[in-house]
Amino acid sequence: MPGLFWVVPAAGVVTIIFAIALARGVLAKPTGTPKMKEIGDIIFQGAWAFLKRQYTTIAIYSIVIGIIIGFLVGILGGTEVEGLSAFAAGWHTTVAFLVGALCSAVAGFIGMYIAVKSNVRCAAAAQRSLTEAVNVAFRGGAVSGFLITALSLIGVTVIFFAYGGNNNPDVAPQLIVGFGFGASFVALFAQLGGGIYTKAADVGADLVGKVEAGIPEDDPRNPAVIADLVGDNVGDCAGRGADLFESTAAENIGAMILGVAAYLVTKNIAWILFPLVVRGFGMFASMIGLFFVRAKETGDAMAALNRGYFVAIGLSIIGLGVAVKYLLDDWWLFGAGVVGILASVVIIWVTQYYTEWKYQPVKDIAEASKTGPATNMIAGLAVGFETTFATAIIIGVALLVSYWMGTQANNSLSTMLGLQLNLGGGFGTAVATMGMLMTCPYVLSMDTFGPITDNANGINEMAGAGPEVRKITDRLDAVGNTTKALTKGYAMVSAGLAAFLLFEAYLDRVSFIKFGEVGLYKVVDIARIEVFVGALLAAMIVYLFSSWAIKAVGRTASKIIEEVRRQFREDPEILNPKDPNNPHMPDYGKAVDITTRAGLREMIRPGLLPVLGPIVIGVIFRYLPGDYDAAMVVAAVLMVGTISGIMMASFMNNGGGAWDNAKKMIEDGQLLDDQGNVIGKKTDAHAAAVVGDTIGDPLKDTAGPSLHVLVKLLATITLVMAPLFIHVV
Amino acid sequence: MPGLFWVVPAAGVVTIIFAIALARGVLAKPTGTPKMKEIGDIIFQGAWAFLKRQYTTIAIYSIVIGIIIGFLVGILGGTEVEGLSAFAAGWHTTVAFLVGALCSAVAGFIGMYIAVKSNVRCAAAAQRSLTEAVNVAFRGGAVSGFLITALSLIGVTVIFFAYGGNNNPDVAPQLIVGFGFGASFVALFAQLGGGIYTKAADVGADLVGKVEAGIPEDDPRNPAVIADLVGDNVGDCAGRGADLFESTAAENIGAMILGVAAYLVTKNIAWILFPLVVRGFGMFASMIGLFFVRAKETGDAMAALNRGYFVAIGLSIIGLGVAVKYLLDDWWLFGAGVVGILASVVIIWVTQYYTEWKYQPVKDIAEASKTGPATNMIAGLAVGFETTFATAIIIGVALLVSYWMGTQANNSLSTMLGLQLNLGGGFGTAVATMGMLMTCPYVLSMDTFGPITDNANGINEMAGAGPEVRKITDRLDAVGNTTKALTKGYAMVSAGLAAFLLFEAYLDRVSFIKFGEVGLYKVVDIARIEVFVGALLAAMIVYLFSSWAIKAVGRTASKIIEEVRRQFREDPEILNPKDPNNPHMPDYGKAVDITTRAGLREMIRPGLLPVLGPIVIGVIFRYLPGDYDAAMVVAAVLMVGTISGIMMASFMNNGGGAWDNAKKMIEDGQLLDDQGNVIGKKTDAHAAAVVGDTIGDPLKDTAGPSLHVLVKLLATITLVMAPLFIHVV
Repeated sequence: MPGLFWVVPAAGVVTIIFAIALARGVLAKPTGTPKMKEIGDIIFQGAWAFLKRQYTTIAIYSIVIGIIIGFLVGILGGTEVEGLSAFAAGWHTTVAFLVGALCSAVAGFIGMYIAVKSNVRCAAAAQRSLTEAVNVAFRGGAVSGFLITALSLIGVTVIFFAYGGNNNPDVAPQLIVGFGFGASFVALFAQLGGGIYTKAADVGADLVGKVEAGIPEDDPRNPAVIADLVGDNVGDCAGRGADLFESTAAENIGAMILGVAAYLVTKNIAWILFPLVVRGFGMFASMIGLFFVRAKETGDAMAALNRGYFVAIGLSIIGLGVAVKYLLDDWWLFGAGVVGILASVVIIWVTQYYTEWKYQPVKDIAEASKTGPATNMIAGLAVGFETTFATAIIIGVALLVSYWMGTQANNSLSTMLGLQLNLGGGFGTAVATMGMLMTCPYVLSMDTFGPITDNANGINEMAGAGPEVRKITDRLDAVGNTTKALTKGYAMVSAGLAAFLLFEAYLDRVSFIKFGEVGLYKVVDIARIEVFVGALLAAMIVYLFSSWAIKAVGRTASKIIEEVRRQFREDPEILNPKDPNNPHMPDYGKAVDITTRAGLREMIRPGLLPVLGPIVIGVIFRYLPGDYDAAMVVAAVLMVGTISGIMMASFMNNGGGAWDNAKKMIEDGQLLDDQGNVIGKKTDAHAAAVVGDTIGDPLKDTAGPSLHVLVKLLATITLVMAPLFIHVV
Repeated sequence: MPGLFWVVPAAGVVTIIFAIALARGVLAKPTGTPKMKEIGDIIFQGAWAFLKRQYTTIAIYSIVIGIIIGFLVGILGGTEVEGLSAFAAGWHTTVAFLVGALCSAVAGFIGMYIAVKSNVRCAAAAQRSLTEAVNVAFRGGAVSGFLITALSLIGVTVIFFAYGGNNNPDVAPQLIVGFGFGASFVALFAQLGGGIYTKAADVGADLVGKVEAGIPEDDPRNPAVIADLVGDNVGDCAGRGADLFESTAAENIGAMILGVAAYLVTKNIAWILFPLVVRGFGMFASMIGLFFVRAKETGDAMAALNRGYFVAIGLSIIGLGVAVKYLLDDWWLFGAGVVGILASVVIIWVTQYYTEWKYQPVKDIAEASKTGPATNMIAGLAVGFETTFATAIIIGVALLVSYWMGTQANNSLSTMLGLQLNLGGGFGTAVATMGMLMTCPYVLSMDTFGPITDNANGINEMAGAGPEVRKITDRLDAVGNTTKALTKGYAMVSAGLAAFLLFEAYLDRVSFIKFGEVGLYKVVDIARIEVFVGALLAAMIVYLFSSWAIKAVGRTASKIIEEVRRQFREDPEILNPKDPNNPHMPDYGKAVDITTRAGLREMIRPGLLPVLGPIVIGVIFRYLPGDYDAAMVVAAVLMVGTISGIMMASFMNNGGGAWDNAKKMIEDGQLLDDQGNVIGKKTDAHAAAVVGDTIGDPLKDTAGPSLHVLVKLLATITLVMAPLFIHVV
């Protein structure tokens, strides 16, 4: 065991202590006026109702699916690992799956708990100063960000050693792939369910409250208003948290599998442990970066967050250098890691270009709003489609360069060690992915900053805070919108960058099952008819998934609308209390629970599509008469599904963000007519921009972010299910 | 030369005579009242202005591109064909390219000429009876449909023999690939330019006419109104005609290339001539089908068109059987052809399901319009995305089954002949494509029926015809909308079905150039980093192309708006004549010419993207240091570009059609509120549906149909440019 390995448990323990300290600090803050406290409690009550229902549902599904996959791997897969019976392979997979699912659930649960508790404290802090509000929001977000990544690191490390990583480090990575699948399974449900929930509540609350009952937005009499506020936490905190928990776990495991080839030649376990050590350094770098966030009362809050981010980036590069030097001793691999880090910086810049109103794309959409909703829509589609260019170029260049550096590393190391290292270029892309994900805890902290400030703004609005306070939370809310968009870009590019390492891990695993060693199954020939058809079906699955996710939002919204109407009908005193000092409160928990039930029910159809799709396609081609290579078909499903999913996600996330900010630009008075007069709120142009924003909502908050998870779920499911697609020879 | 080959010249000659007879019949019909004649002449004047400008531009581009590709093939490609110098290979390619471009242009020119002349005659016929109007519109459309396919067949046949097809039938198909590229090059310009033109004119005429000047729709005082009517012909007749001219040409050539393998073993030229013979039978079948179109005064015009279509289908199956029996003598290949014919029937049914208002999808969109344009848009997106499922399944199943039948044919024929035939399964997909395209002349006739009836309706509206006449042309217009949607589905699935034969033709050609014989270059390994990145870039090109096409519509519309404003400003008597008996006419030709110039200028950027994209990607990977296989990267660009393009086109064409018909459904009084009252025109729901229709317009009439051509252009450009991507060994 290399001495540097101890960075991993150290990072895990220190991060957890750090997160607890942050949480205690945030929870010790005052909760403001009794009115604010009351609203905060109501949101907490709603979030609790949601969590209870969501995790019950997910637990049931996870147990059923976990047992089924263990059964399938055990019975159909045959003996795949030397010295391990089919039965043992099955239950190892089931246990790893369940542990992965549990870790993801725990991370989401705790993170959201703290985030919800931070809302009201951030709202209260805004009454004192901007600096304090930024600190509360960012630290509350950091609890979630750091706990999630710590759990991922600890979970993968513990299960690796529990499955014999110390004695058989070449076999153990194969056994723990179930952990990644469990994590991505929960992530898909969390992101999809959360995304459906948040947008359905948004639309439902608006339609019955504002349009039918004629009460203002965020009015406490509206039973769905809390569901709306809860939704922000559910969709953004829990959903993206689960997304990136899954990324860090699955990509660690994939990178460890790729390291096996070099381990077998060198017998140096550092090749397998390297990804964990890099992650450990990343956590320290992110932690230190956090201390550099110091908002100034008059300054730009985004600049404060950026400063911490660049400190984290700089320290990550140093940490990467140390890890590479002492574990692998090759500077080409350091270069590959730096490529990944740079890719994360570039995508963040590009996302800002496409979604902030100081740049041309959002201006174009706002301009098009002058001629109505149709031209606003067309302009937004054009912008969203165009963003795929930058996404594809960034991912493509990063993959090519890091792959090339991987092959250079193989050559120079082979020469130096006098051995044939068999390190594929894919290991270079793995190091790039590791590099990119080093700052993940920091990015997640920024992401969760978004819903906390959004909720703080809502609480201050409902509690009738003064204009000075509102101005502070409004400013923070705008920063939060930006950080949320950035995180989506980061999650998307990391999914793209990870794609290649996960493909290679899949091919290595197929080779291992089929021939007993890695590296013998390498070709995915899309010119074979069945492989081409598999690729076509994969591209289709991305569209069908998007269609179903969007429809689910519509159907869930109709359930909320029914419930709000029922409460208003059965107790008229909710809307018009006889005794103003003792108003009848609506049953928020009930509305939240119904939204949750409907959202989770609607989530099943789109959620099962990417789980069952690749399995059904693979099994059909395994048993269809004819000379079909089912494992290769599934590989094409994975690869072309990844390409299609990332392109669609780029369109949806960035297009949706651009629509949103075109509306905000008009509300901010930045759109002028030919005479130079401001075209602001309550104009036709503003109405058109509101339509665009509403259309963008289910794209950027439901379908788009779910597509990142879909892409990674395709990778983990094919990795785990590989035995099903292979005629063992 | 097998005796059955004479079907080909016979079909060519008979079809041309038939088309001339049809044209004379249509032109002999009366042109109605002087007012109608006047309007018809104005449309003709506009169409003339467009054609002049469009074909001048296209000619210049074609000559430049033709010389460049000849130069590149000649200089960079090296000697690729036995007995042919590099210089000869170059000029053969240039000449074939220019002939292909010329044939496509001539077909488009004549077809549109007759279609425009048919408009006013159809309008006049509607004043007598529905039957006569259907006959004029359908026969006018048939002139275009039959001439286009005849020119394609004659063009390919003549250039095949001119390039030595009689003496070296194995080499000639390689030399004529430039013909297909020329055809698809013109097709892309025609479809993209036409699509931009028609939608920009539509939007521009409405915005200045209806909104600013307050004059009714289709008012003759609006200088852009003629451009709007011309646009229907330009986008639908000329565009789709060029699209299918290209399909029939390129897919014939591809199938001939695939037949070379079997020819080399059997020395039977029938393997190479088979696609031409099948096409010949298809033309006779379509011609006979035409005689079965007899609309009844009280009946459904669509039913009359369908009857003729099913006759054409039945006769095509018989013709296919005869061709297979006497040329190839294998019933598996007959089966493959039938699969293609069935695929065309199924896609037509599916398109109707998704775009007609009697089925659920359009009803869902209309229903969603009740809650505003945002929910209308979301519902339409969900429907459009969902249609990819049916498209992918139809193409996937047809490909798998026909490929499997191709391999069965290879086995049974090899046994029977005692030879190793080397017929790939791809030949099965080629026969399926041939089968599907047999009814192409008939389908094109139905397609052109659409713009003719649309224009007839407009002419009657402008000429102030009575309600009885308007009812007839309104009914025909609705039928025309359906036939237009069906043709797009047909073009899309034929592109998908042809994909595999064109890939195999590309791989055969690469093998031929690289190793001097076919069948040695077969693998496209997407697990190679550069191939994966190529696939990613191809998926991106589809999005970027769509973005630019959509933006081009917006920019062109702004030019039209400027011109209309200028005419109104410089001659106020256009709008308000001092002497009502002698009104000042607007300069329609000028408006048309400006629209044309702007449209053709805007077309360049999106048009060059798919032409230059694959070349740039291929050349970069050829010269980039490292072990990259540029020819394989280009193959992946072709394959994944095809998959992405078809999925996007399915979304755009069907989604746009569904939005259009959701609006029509509301206008027809088919949408009811909870109390059962009709929600009709001038309601909020109608306004919302109009927004959806406007958004769908550039998708279904500009970007979507251009994507079919893009897919096939990718195939022909890679086929022609193959020498550029190869390190000749």
